[in-house]
Amino acid sequence: MPHSPTDPSGALVEQLDLAPVRNGSLDGLYFTVKDNIDLAGLKTSYGSPAWRDAHPAPVHNALCVDQLLASGARCVGKVVADEFTYSLDGESFYFGTPRNAKAPDRVPGGSSSGSAASVANGLADFSLCTDAGGSVRVPASLCGLWGMRPSLHRISEAGVLPFQPSVSTVGVLADRFEVLDATMRVLLNAPASSMPSPRRILVLQDALEIADAAVRDEVGSALDRIEEHTGIVIEPVRFSEIVGEACELKVCNLNGLRDLQTAEFQSTVGNWIEACKPELGFTFSMAYGNVRRFDRIAALDNMARCERLFRQINAFFTPETVICFPTTPKIAPRKGSLNTLEAVMDFYDPTMTITAFSGVARLPEISVPLLTVDTCPVGLSFVAGHYQDEFLLSAVKRMIS
Amino acid sequence: MPHSPTDPSGALVEQLDLAPVRNGSLDGLYFTVKDNIDLAGLKTSYGSPAWRDAHPAPVHNALCVDQLLASGARCVGKVVADEFTYSLDGESFYFGTPRNAKAPDRVPGGSSSGSAASVANGLADFSLCTDAGGSVRVPASLCGLWGMRPSLHRISEAGVLPFQPSVSTVGVLADRFEVLDATMRVLLNAPASSMPSPRRILVLQDALEIADAAVRDEVGSALDRIEEHTGIVIEPVRFSEIVGEACELKVCNLNGLRDLQTAEFQSTVGNWIEACKPELGFTFSMAYGNVRRFDRIAALDNMARCERLFRQINAFFTPETVICFPTTPKIAPRKGSLNTLEAVMDFYDPTMTITAFSGVARLPEISVPLLTVDTCPVGLSFVAGHYQDEFLLSAVKRMIS
Repeated sequence: MPHSPTDPSGALVEQLDLAPVRNGSLDGLYFTVKDNIDLAGLKTSYGSPAWRDAHPAPVHNALCVDQLLASGARCVGKVVADEFTYSLDGESFYFGTPRNAKAPDRVPGGSSSGSAASVANGLADFSLCTDAGGSVRVPASLCGLWGMRPSLHRISEAGVLPFQPSVSTVGVLADRFEVLDATMRVLLNAPASSMPSPRRILVLQDALEIADAAVRDEVGSALDRIEEHTGIVIEPVRFSEIVGEACELKVCNLNGLRDLQTAEFQSTVGNWIEACKPELGFTFSMAYGNVRRFDRIAALDNMARCERLFRQINAFFTPETVICFPTTPKIAPRKGSLNTLEAVMDFYDPTMTITAFSGVARLPEISVPLLTVDTCPVGLSFVAGHYQDEFLLSAVKRMIS
Repeated sequence: MPHSPTDPSGALVEQLDLAPVRNGSLDGLYFTVKDNIDLAGLKTSYGSPAWRDAHPAPVHNALCVDQLLASGARCVGKVVADEFTYSLDGESFYFGTPRNAKAPDRVPGGSSSGSAASVANGLADFSLCTDAGGSVRVPASLCGLWGMRPSLHRISEAGVLPFQPSVSTVGVLADRFEVLDATMRVLLNAPASSMPSPRRILVLQDALEIADAAVRDEVGSALDRIEEHTGIVIEPVRFSEIVGEACELKVCNLNGLRDLQTAEFQSTVGNWIEACKPELGFTFSMAYGNVRRFDRIAALDNMARCERLFRQINAFFTPETVICFPTTPKIAPRKGSLNTLEAVMDFYDPTMTITAFSGVARLPEISVPLLTVDTCPVGLSFVAGHYQDEFLLSAVKRMIS
């Protein structure tokens, strides 16, 4: 399915015009929906033609879609997702590579690639999408958009295809803060309210050290501006201080989240693939080989580690703490460049080392399009404690306005 | 499928003998698995022959099953669940009514009816099951077993059939506290550790007022014994004090959880039924008529209420607070007696008014088999704040040992 000549963004699976069912705080806003979220009467592909053809169309919209339509927003399309949403690069074997508007020779990031492209190319104000390992945050960073992964389990996943029940979330990509804020408040059932100002802004050194030097420099400049604007001295923090024991940031992914995600993926998509033997795209097939060979019994200790890391990291947060770090350690890779194991590892390993911090600790994270390296965007992320989504939205507003 | 002559409990869908894969804290314990939780190589019925026949067998056990097998427990059977687990009575149109060992002329409660019967009739030490609206707690109460519904989302639901993602949990029914404690610590990834003693035990007056007078009297006697044993004065609390505004306990269900559950059920089982038009059992068909007619847009306000109730109720808990109430307001109904709308309402309405308290607030709840009315069991429930599962286990141990 190559890009349609009428859709230069390459984002659309299907153009739609679903009118809002009530007026509300999102009146006048247009949105797209990632193709792993149900829209009534349309087959949900999950990024896989085989899955799409094997499953009936839902009769109900996902609950999160109904929340938006009942608040005045209009749905203008269903957009591309990476196959089984199991990727962070946004190069789909079946649906193509949606256009990274600010860096057209580079990938948009995934798995919410169509979501990012639909917003960045002006088809919509925001896109409803999902994030487990980084599928909202990575495209936000690489396409220069606002993106929020909320606290785990703050938004209903009814009508969102099951993927990794202990990790995956519904999130939003938007072209400006006001849109992100308004849509997240609808989805979170969180009307705007008075929140404390951030009093402690900490920058995670371990993430900076993983980032490219040019990204690190840009983070420094952005934080200088935020310090000046807020009057708050931004202090460094190390991962070992946060968890209260000597260990490195990479344990979040390598000794925790990665195994939990793989085991849960075996139980959802894995069971279906093993039973039905569907056609799989080349890139996904490679990744799935690792899923198939994965020893879930050996992984149980890392699942227990996830629970402990969640506790440790959240015990560090006070209600007025924000931690920040670059959303991704690098700008987007060039299209077609992830064609060797080395290139794949070079992209995924450092990226997931950073994204797993919020993942394992179930934190809300907002990626802010503040950094530019070699004319390409990179996001600066802010996180708060689990379920402190309203505080985080308010804190980010104060820091950037 | 009538009861097998070799299984007088009526609990078994299939007898099994799955050996543990590692030794551990559950060495020597036998368990059964509710038939909405995956066991590798066996079709999962979800309590529905039509669902079973339409879906392939999983190749992986659910992650929670693997946790138990890797801790020394042996799986001895797959057991009956009510159709689509959408019931609290335990009278399955297709799989019969598993035997309530302590009150054989009465229903066992559901939807974990086979789980309760397998434990109460001595086939297993514990059963792995699920709870959304009360499916662990109600059979625990009506069959005189220990039962725990953990905090929402504390245990992975990978390999557990999707049902109501914002409400459903994996839980355990057990024949003694030590077994419940040991199994829950494995599932929660929570090794035994030093916990504060409960300092504030409160009894929820609104739940007592809904209960039958004889249940109320039994609660009073049990609390007298706990006061004497612990030296803590148990004080009354009203729901309006907990939430900090004038409202009644029934709002948890009527203006909150019930609508969230129905909307989410539409998006999971509902979509499948509408697309595939499977054969449905008589009782479930009646209930499903209400699901089909349900207006999910009108329900969005009640979903927002759920989020607010969660916040309000959890803001009331300190780390040393336990709240208690009768798990169910009555003893088990007689078998076959739920055959009029009035009888159904008389069972479900007061029961769900009580069970929705933990449901909407995502609290851990342990039902303790402490009460007897007319020779039939009723449970006394203890709850703590969201994610305070370890404290709750420790607090209950101190109160009853």
